[in-house]
Amino acid sequence: MSDDLRHMAHALRLGRRGMGQCWPNPAVGCVIVKEGRVVGRGWTAPGGRPHAEPQALAMAGEAARGATAYVTLEPCAHTGKTPPCTEALRKAGIARVVAPLADSDPRVSGKGFAYLRSHGIEVTTGILAAEAARDHAGFFLKVERGRPWVTLKLANSFDGRIATATGESQWITGPEARRAVHGLRAAHDAVMVGAGTARADDPALTVRGWGQVRQPVRVVASRLIDVPLMSRLASTARDEPVWMIHGREAAAMTRKAWASCGARLLPCDVSGGRLDPEALLSVLGGQGLTRVFCEGGGQLAASLLAADMVDELVGFTAGLALGAEGRPGVGAMGVDRLSEAPRFVLEETTRVGEDVMHRWIRPRV
Amino acid sequence: MSDDLRHMAHALRLGRRGMGQCWPNPAVGCVIVKEGRVVGRGWTAPGGRPHAEPQALAMAGEAARGATAYVTLEPCAHTGKTPPCTEALRKAGIARVVAPLADSDPRVSGKGFAYLRSHGIEVTTGILAAEAARDHAGFFLKVERGRPWVTLKLANSFDGRIATATGESQWITGPEARRAVHGLRAAHDAVMVGAGTARADDPALTVRGWGQVRQPVRVVASRLIDVPLMSRLASTARDEPVWMIHGREAAAMTRKAWASCGARLLPCDVSGGRLDPEALLSVLGGQGLTRVFCEGGGQLAASLLAADMVDELVGFTAGLALGAEGRPGVGAMGVDRLSEAPRFVLEETTRVGEDVMHRWIRPRV
Repeated sequence: MSDDLRHMAHALRLGRRGMGQCWPNPAVGCVIVKEGRVVGRGWTAPGGRPHAEPQALAMAGEAARGATAYVTLEPCAHTGKTPPCTEALRKAGIARVVAPLADSDPRVSGKGFAYLRSHGIEVTTGILAAEAARDHAGFFLKVERGRPWVTLKLANSFDGRIATATGESQWITGPEARRAVHGLRAAHDAVMVGAGTARADDPALTVRGWGQVRQPVRVVASRLIDVPLMSRLASTARDEPVWMIHGREAAAMTRKAWASCGARLLPCDVSGGRLDPEALLSVLGGQGLTRVFCEGGGQLAASLLAADMVDELVGFTAGLALGAEGRPGVGAMGVDRLSEAPRFVLEETTRVGEDVMHRWIRPRV
Repeated sequence: MSDDLRHMAHALRLGRRGMGQCWPNPAVGCVIVKEGRVVGRGWTAPGGRPHAEPQALAMAGEAARGATAYVTLEPCAHTGKTPPCTEALRKAGIARVVAPLADSDPRVSGKGFAYLRSHGIEVTTGILAAEAARDHAGFFLKVERGRPWVTLKLANSFDGRIATATGESQWITGPEARRAVHGLRAAHDAVMVGAGTARADDPALTVRGWGQVRQPVRVVASRLIDVPLMSRLASTARDEPVWMIHGREAAAMTRKAWASCGARLLPCDVSGGRLDPEALLSVLGGQGLTRVFCEGGGQLAASLLAADMVDELVGFTAGLALGAEGRPGVGAMGVDRLSEAPRFVLEETTRVGEDVMHRWIRPRV
């Protein structure tokens, strides 16, 4: 049993390598163990194919016969672009499959386990199920609710400000925190900002300093697309994807101009004069995104928080105070009572360079 | 040498027990070691007398002869209410004194070490000097600059708010964080708030749940003393000290009323329509305070930060967002450029119950 735990933890670690890299597929890890020795390892490849299992099986070769496969999600049973993984596991002679939980994709759910069992392969489930559920939370949200996991980042001063009154924001946090932000971007399918941030900071929103990675989609949420065409996002939209989520009232000329820069234009419902946060996330989920990293600004953050659409908070807090004239990291939320504010549960807090990093998860029943 | 380190670390731990309990004296610890065995321990008693050394010597008795005394500050050489500790150490037959650093009190500085050496006692200095300097920082500030060490506490939401727009603030942080705040109060000579906080929260500002402790002085900074007499502070001012720091323009009747409740009235210079932060701390230092714990509100916090009079920041951050309408923990500071904002260096970050605690120190050259 402790061996099962150890190998599943290994498979989970491998699976996490695919986070942000393999959407719309889940980031799965697989370890094949024969007589106590790891003979194959794999994780979902960039872009989602090949899956983890065939890669681990290929590495194991003949050693897979009679071995145990540790997979972090129920192996697929349907024929997509490639034959199902369940069939590959059977053909390779795998004797036992250990998986923490069933897939919630209706094309797979339960069918993968049933197929394996019906072919005489022993199936064990439930091991590190909570950890696996966390790792696949974005994929499950997309399948079950049609929206991605939303991580909201805030890099602020000790007193919760993201810029001085005059707008100076570079740099409140230190280089190590900024590097960590790039790592977080790489672990998400998309990076999202509001129009105000796109205008104020002219950000590239790419991942830098983490080697060769699949760049996240750069999403701008702007009802009227009021982001200048003379911006880094517009000028690089042909190199890495830029998606402009806009209201239907955005001017046709502006839409055309952004489209001709290479951006993808995605219309979205508006409520209360702003992009509706639920509709916004449905649009993103509909495009296959499973994990979205929101970097502000204050208005977009407030709108997502007020709609209880934020699943994870990541704060970077610096050791300086800017005072009440400084720009708030979260805009007006309309919260009158403490009991109305969504509560997050602390995952971890640690020093990152000169700053404090703290990570929180919204518990869902 | 490693023995010296170990015993000095022990003495420093003992000394810290007196923090907040022994002002206006420094919180000193003393360990007496004979042939590798600890034969005496002591720390400055509540109220500042007796000092650490005579208590440790009394415990050691005859064993002190030929022993080494580890003291966290240069032993006093002047006759105050009691004979000097240097004399006591000599009379007890101590052969060697290890102390990290010299006292900066001009009545002691260097004289204690000189007395010991002139009586044939070996003196070693410099061991854990940085740690000792930190522990005695409040005492040194009072002696050298006439003001106490200022610790500023902020208990706020993820987005830096201390209350909702409607003023609801109980409770943003959890019971463990509140308990930690009481522990921090006990380790300071005084707890200070502005008039706005005194009015809004009607706080008792006492230490609860930490056993029998010398209660900190409760300081209210209020130019016009606009705190109601029907408050916990006024009604308990005879039980534990309440000091009202006010401008000279505060109405005589109000001053009289507070004095008749048992509060101490201390006038202070005003600048820019507010109590001058430097003058405020001079008043407190003049009364002998070495460590002051400021619990807000936003205006007092901003005024101390803007004057660069805060030495330590303690943040408690909760996992909820209240939005920009919420009350800011730090008021307007007049900071336009990031380079104008005082930077603090992270000491530690840790989980306290459901919340994050982070502690920062202002480096002084």
